[in-house]
Amino acid sequence: MYEGAIQDLIDELGRLPGVGPKSAQRIAFHLLSADTADVDRLATSLRRVKELVRFCDTCFNVAESQQCRICRDARRSDEVLCVVEEPKDVVAIERTNEFRGRYHVLGGAINPLEGVGPDHLRVRELMARLAAGVVKELILATDPNTEGEATATYLALMVKPMGLKVTRLASGLPVGGDLEYADEVTLGRAFEGRRAV
Amino acid sequence: MYEGAIQDLIDELGRLPGVGPKSAQRIAFHLLSADTADVDRLATSLRRVKELVRFCDTCFNVAESQQCRICRDARRSDEVLCVVEEPKDVVAIERTNEFRGRYHVLGGAINPLEGVGPDHLRVRELMARLAAGVVKELILATDPNTEGEATATYLALMVKPMGLKVTRLASGLPVGGDLEYADEVTLGRAFEGRRAV
Repeated sequence: MYEGAIQDLIDELGRLPGVGPKSAQRIAFHLLSADTADVDRLATSLRRVKELVRFCDTCFNVAESQQCRICRDARRSDEVLCVVEEPKDVVAIERTNEFRGRYHVLGGAINPLEGVGPDHLRVRELMARLAAGVVKELILATDPNTEGEATATYLALMVKPMGLKVTRLASGLPVGGDLEYADEVTLGRAFEGRRAV
Repeated sequence: MYEGAIQDLIDELGRLPGVGPKSAQRIAFHLLSADTADVDRLATSLRRVKELVRFCDTCFNVAESQQCRICRDARRSDEVLCVVEEPKDVVAIERTNEFRGRYHVLGGAINPLEGVGPDHLRVRELMARLAAGVVKELILATDPNTEGEATATYLALMVKPMGLKVTRLASGLPVGGDLEYADEVTLGRAFEGRRAV
């Protein structure tokens, strides 16, 4: 449609997740009229991510050295380990300021339909960490959907022989939400998990 | 939230039009696990756009040399000139295969609320092209919205003394659309512009 370089950029942008052909065109024309310095900064940050960012050797969170910021933090407890699917889940939990233990990032959830089994996740690495015997509580903070629940159930079975405390995040009504708009499953879980006041 | 380079990339992506914080994060993690070659291609195409793409000296469409592909094409008629707001409008019209004349890209539309007046558009350059006396018909193909209509009305007044044929694209029902869902203005225009069959 367009000549050379602008069409190449539209094509490349269109390959990104969630960017359709119209958005790709809009972004390309935005960049065409943006400052060269801004576009250079974006191009540089793309290359730097591939050069600098790696996964933490311990927990598989994103890191820029062998260990991530959280694994390096000596003030955190080694006795509570929180298992999540992705690095963005670590960020979400950190934002709550409720958790002072360590993490283990699986790199996804069990999903037979997409051919993702336990071997594709960092389950072996989790078992190795638990085998050291320091962890007292394992929090299974995978997503509260089919794949996340399946992964949590699988992990709970796997670690059962180790005899440590295994917990799952509470399901219930989102704070600030409206009871009448809650789906049946969530509302059912909220009843199940009701607490004395 | 994240360490160094990945957060920088999320920030840079979040500055693009239509990319919110969640999409920026999603794209950044996609790129983190993408092939280095793919990310390099995106970074290169960003830099190449700023290096290579310029505006055509004649019509102000995007080009990679002094003249764009359309202005260089000797088989097109110089007698019909189609005025559009943006390069993407040229692409949309080219896709119809209905038009074999030349274009003039204004670079926007008159919009007093955003401080865009005729001086911010390539109106002077349009007048210079028309003054050569070759153009017989001027098609005002600005958008059928308030700004586009205002721009078309302004240009029609400006070129009136030149005595050339000035036309505007037909307004009416979109082909394949549903009459009952058409808004009143569009339906009114469709009545106004009705044709004998």
